[in-house]
Amino acid sequence: MDAAEFRRRGKEMVDFVADYLENIEHRRVYPDVEPGYLRSMIPSEAPLEPESYEDVLKDVDRVIMPGITHWQSPHFHAYFPSASSYPALLADMLCGGLGCIGFTWAASPACTELETVMLDWLGKMLQLPEDFLAGTKGQGGGVIQGTASEATLMALLAARCKAVKCVHESDPQRSEADIISKLIAYTSEEAHSSVERAGLIGGVGIRMVATDEHFSVRAETLEKMVAEDKAAGFIPFFFCATLGTTPSCAFDKITELGPLCNAENIWMHIDAAYAGSSFICPEFRPLLDGVEFADSFNFNPHKWLLVNFDCSAMWVKKRTDLIGAFKLDPVYLKYDNQESGLVTDYRHWGIPLGRRFRSLKLWFVFRMYGQSGLQAYIRKGSDELNEALLKEMTHLGRIHLVPCKLRGRFVLRFAVCGRTTELRHVQEAWTHITELQHAASREFHTMW
Amino acid sequence: MDAAEFRRRGKEMVDFVADYLENIEHRRVYPDVEPGYLRSMIPSEAPLEPESYEDVLKDVDRVIMPGITHWQSPHFHAYFPSASSYPALLADMLCGGLGCIGFTWAASPACTELETVMLDWLGKMLQLPEDFLAGTKGQGGGVIQGTASEATLMALLAARCKAVKCVHESDPQRSEADIISKLIAYTSEEAHSSVERAGLIGGVGIRMVATDEHFSVRAETLEKMVAEDKAAGFIPFFFCATLGTTPSCAFDKITELGPLCNAENIWMHIDAAYAGSSFICPEFRPLLDGVEFADSFNFNPHKWLLVNFDCSAMWVKKRTDLIGAFKLDPVYLKYDNQESGLVTDYRHWGIPLGRRFRSLKLWFVFRMYGQSGLQAYIRKGSDELNEALLKEMTHLGRIHLVPCKLRGRFVLRFAVCGRTTELRHVQEAWTHITELQHAASREFHTMW
Repeated sequence: MDAAEFRRRGKEMVDFVADYLENIEHRRVYPDVEPGYLRSMIPSEAPLEPESYEDVLKDVDRVIMPGITHWQSPHFHAYFPSASSYPALLADMLCGGLGCIGFTWAASPACTELETVMLDWLGKMLQLPEDFLAGTKGQGGGVIQGTASEATLMALLAARCKAVKCVHESDPQRSEADIISKLIAYTSEEAHSSVERAGLIGGVGIRMVATDEHFSVRAETLEKMVAEDKAAGFIPFFFCATLGTTPSCAFDKITELGPLCNAENIWMHIDAAYAGSSFICPEFRPLLDGVEFADSFNFNPHKWLLVNFDCSAMWVKKRTDLIGAFKLDPVYLKYDNQESGLVTDYRHWGIPLGRRFRSLKLWFVFRMYGQSGLQAYIRKGSDELNEALLKEMTHLGRIHLVPCKLRGRFVLRFAVCGRTTELRHVQEAWTHITELQHAASREFHTMW
Repeated sequence: MDAAEFRRRGKEMVDFVADYLENIEHRRVYPDVEPGYLRSMIPSEAPLEPESYEDVLKDVDRVIMPGITHWQSPHFHAYFPSASSYPALLADMLCGGLGCIGFTWAASPACTELETVMLDWLGKMLQLPEDFLAGTKGQGGGVIQGTASEATLMALLAARCKAVKCVHESDPQRSEADIISKLIAYTSEEAHSSVERAGLIGGVGIRMVATDEHFSVRAETLEKMVAEDKAAGFIPFFFCATLGTTPSCAFDKITELGPLCNAENIWMHIDAAYAGSSFICPEFRPLLDGVEFADSFNFNPHKWLLVNFDCSAMWVKKRTDLIGAFKLDPVYLKYDNQESGLVTDYRHWGIPLGRRFRSLKLWFVFRMYGQSGLQAYIRKGSDELNEALLKEMTHLGRIHLVPCKLRGRFVLRFAVCGRTTELRHVQEAWTHITELQHAASREFHTMW
């Protein structure tokens, strides 16, 4: 296929994708295939001679489409949202065309520098404390990881390295292996399984912290566990807080937990993988209060911020904590400006060496939507939640109220209207609304 | 941006990418920018209101292009090749449009099943032993990792888990931490830095094995180290062999090393990240002899097989070794067919949970080039190497020979022509050619 044919086929593919997305809601969202369906539909070996592009495209419809779970369908309410937007798709096309690999600054300066600045932009949108931004001379900064699993693992590994160094300094006789064998990480019993997995990979103990009636980890509980573990000779070193757990979107109380972790020299990482996008709205930003105590913070724009997978945003307060853990500098990756202190080599910030130009997606989306457009998109969810709640209340018919619009937002109005309405009626209504809200919220949040 | 605008902008982007790739050789391949150049060229915050797409595209030319290291330029000879082809770009557009996340079979059956079958196709192209293929009831199989670094890490972690279980069975009193503290991994002193890094992440000891005069690890050397380490109470558990080292494309002698590793119960992983694509040609396949002794094997189609980054192909002989290491099954990822034994859940095979539909790229490339086209592409490199060698010989003028074409391949003909030519002249010529070939090969292989 030469450039001329690519121009033609590429334009057809743009239409194919647009057709797919425009008509997706008419497709069955979950495929009706049995495990192993695909193997018998295609040859058992790669063709010896080239085939025609038409035949390949025909097979996309014949072989692939019947087996697709349509994540972009409006009927898809499983797992979490996989963000998608046209500007992000365009940016990904550009990324593919450029085909550059940004593991060091020199490997493609624009790729590295746009990533740093885009993570600063996004950090400002979240009102992250200055410490987390790279700026022109900050000690912190952001990086795009592929997934929250990788961000959690990197945070745990950096914390492990820091803890080993710290213990080793005060007790030089103690071996690294002995120290690691005593390290204990903590996370909520409601946390995502990737946190436990990070502990397994890192070869450290991991304890699940019980939650309160709101499914939140409280400082009191963690404090007790830490004290017990220290008394037993273990070394508490890492706590992964969750803002927005997978089952119920519960929030750990980081305003309490942060000071505890700081006092105990425990690295606090915050996993806000799917709730994090909402913090760009001032009305949701209080949910992030306490982030100032954290050592690292992560959320996934590829879930709820219109940026196609993969794009998991991670910030650290001290870059050196992250990159110091595994920095190896072979000669073939050395270049001139490396020691100037001005450059960022993102290969030290994650597991993979190779990296695509993913910050283009952030740049295109931020600019094409603007902060106002992104906030409106997040709020659209809240409005829809309120609408769904009202619909359910109306359907059940136990209480009756009407909505209004307040500065463009969909708001539920509760007026005390009846001559015979007493306090107990208001209380009953509130209980009813709260119960429905919990149910609606649970259902709603499986979308994210 | 609505679908109609995406159709228009997408087609413009196709032309943008085609224009870029058609004219890339006229661009300066390494950018002329100083560290920090980009930050001052764009605002310090995301715009509050949406901007026009024209403005974004103008900034791609103004801000991004001056800072790009053009990996797709024919003048790019640094690091390794970042593969790119039009069929792979089209497949990536489709992948972006579908926007599905294939972490379990149910999350998108086609995404999982095509990956399994494409890795079987590719395994057959490499003539991998049957053990490595999934087939319909094999115990092995392939997976797409993002990078070779991740494949090496996964192999090391699986080997660590297996070693711990094995030692623990024979000595149940021994703690996991104590066992891990005694584990030793080995790799060539010429191996890629990612192997040492995997050891650091896995928290195990890692020893660099000295190489012979061809920069190859030999069994004799490893055998001695293993014996010494065992005598000192350590537990050798993992050896990462390299086929095609980064500095000089040297090959470890896996036909010797494999039996040693098997006898010593050491997991042998083979990293053929950049040389591996050549094994699809029968004339290069002998370089892979000995793979039958390996537990896992990896190479990067995204380097030399026309598949855009990221696509690192990994095979294991026993799936259970890999997935058993970290299998965690939270309720929200459970589904009906999970326990049937027919399905593959790739989330257990790697670090990230989320995964894009990367096998589409393999499928498009295999079908649009055919095995013959891919072999021709690999051989094009060899022909060019021979041509470069001949040119250098001619330039130096010490010996003279002419080329020929043999079944389409560029071959160097060496005829004994002179009346006065003696054995020593032939020997001198051979030494001269060999020296030049080493120099040319070193230079040539920095391309891959």
